[in-house]
Amino acid sequence: MEKTINVYYISGNTGILARNLGKALLAQFPGITFHGESFPFIRTEEDARAARRRILTQSLDSRPIVFSTVFVRKLNDIFNTPEIHFLNVCEGFLLRLEYLLEARALRLPGSSRQHDDMIMAKRVNAIQFSIAHDDGTNLKDYDEADLILIGVSRSGKTPVSIYLATQMGMKTANYPLVEEDLQRRRLPPEVIRNRGRVAAISTSARMLHVFRENRYKGSRYARLATCAEELEQARELCQLHKIPVIISSGRSIEETATQIVHELGLKAAITF
Amino acid sequence: MEKTINVYYISGNTGILARNLGKALLAQFPGITFHGESFPFIRTEEDARAARRRILTQSLDSRPIVFSTVFVRKLNDIFNTPEIHFLNVCEGFLLRLEYLLEARALRLPGSSRQHDDMIMAKRVNAIQFSIAHDDGTNLKDYDEADLILIGVSRSGKTPVSIYLATQMGMKTANYPLVEEDLQRRRLPPEVIRNRGRVAAISTSARMLHVFRENRYKGSRYARLATCAEELEQARELCQLHKIPVIISSGRSIEETATQIVHELGLKAAITF
Repeated sequence: MEKTINVYYISGNTGILARNLGKALLAQFPGITFHGESFPFIRTEEDARAARRRILTQSLDSRPIVFSTVFVRKLNDIFNTPEIHFLNVCEGFLLRLEYLLEARALRLPGSSRQHDDMIMAKRVNAIQFSIAHDDGTNLKDYDEADLILIGVSRSGKTPVSIYLATQMGMKTANYPLVEEDLQRRRLPPEVIRNRGRVAAISTSARMLHVFRENRYKGSRYARLATCAEELEQARELCQLHKIPVIISSGRSIEETATQIVHELGLKAAITF
Repeated sequence: MEKTINVYYISGNTGILARNLGKALLAQFPGITFHGESFPFIRTEEDARAARRRILTQSLDSRPIVFSTVFVRKLNDIFNTPEIHFLNVCEGFLLRLEYLLEARALRLPGSSRQHDDMIMAKRVNAIQFSIAHDDGTNLKDYDEADLILIGVSRSGKTPVSIYLATQMGMKTANYPLVEEDLQRRRLPPEVIRNRGRVAAISTSARMLHVFRENRYKGSRYARLATCAEELEQARELCQLHKIPVIISSGRSIEETATQIVHELGLKAAITF
């Protein structure tokens, strides 16, 4: 039977970075099964020892891998022992940066996510805006939007809008292309006049069919032929209005969102 | 005058990981000003050369820093030249993992964010749920929630709920503690009976005052004394019902969300 390798992400803060890096690296080894767990907020030797005990108890069969974004040397030392494959995510880069910047690194946890009132306000406003402008609501405010996503019903506009708001601080509205838009090849004036910030999301007819069947099983709306037809009409409509179309099928929310911002030549309102 | 150092994040995919790592590292050097820019989707030598040209044109004054999560050696080579401080985020770790896992890494871009239907469905459902259960709506569905956040009005429940849904796939409802709840020290039965998955968000009276003033300037609701009183009443209510209270002031959305999941002993529905 295939062996599972335990992987742990330890951090003085959320552990999000350790996990994201670990996941990206381990995904390059698709033949191996990994089991991952995070230990955030490792701040004291007691925290570190408790985490180490849990890690070793769970890993009697094979040596676990630990990715660490902890900055404090004496906390890392607790994990950096022969029973553990210890990977220090930051230390090597920090040494290199100290050398090339001719400066000393603080080595304090969580500095990159330190509270910044302006960033916080942008994210909160963008999230509120996107919730209030989901699914074609409040078109009157579209001039205020950083980005407007259009697409047929159930093409995946909402998750991308919410992601753009939460992670990039962009006020994103989304507008569903309804039958009338598709057949008359028209778009609301609020969309048209903000065209430079409009992108369309498309997907495969099969995926759309699956999503629609989940909601309205057996309906005409969910039929594969209806899906294919609407997607084709939407494609023509976008071509007519010179709106870029981004395909979301086979892509994660992150990829679709990044592709849209890239394609429109926009910049994230915040990067953090 | 202080010099700004240009920093670039290049990636075969979204560039999110390169940027997050770079930001975390550079935040350890608070005395230096950095200007960051991402070049996602570097897939061909042409993409790489175009990015390199832009980087060098923008960095005539000082040698730029490039963080790369590109996996393809010949693309990295285009950036790894004397004009650039080149930091390869993945290569060192991949070599170490190849050795300890006794396996060969694929070195394909974006594998960690490769489309996974199950993860996608969990995220989409969680986002839809959180939007439909924002601000005390649809209490009848609370038994279905993975997590329920409570707190006084404007304490920051919505952004944390949306983050938990988007990034951790957790169906998160949020419920505002209204005057009646606070004065009678009561909670709706839908909250009470799911207590193991309920956390409260609190903040400082000053922050709450600022947020409320933004919305209803000069109102009794926004007054500092009202804010302090409501926060104290909420604290007592939570103590009575044994609900953990997480302080959001001075914390990023990520930190608050991670702290809540950690405190309740829950696991993210997805980790990716």
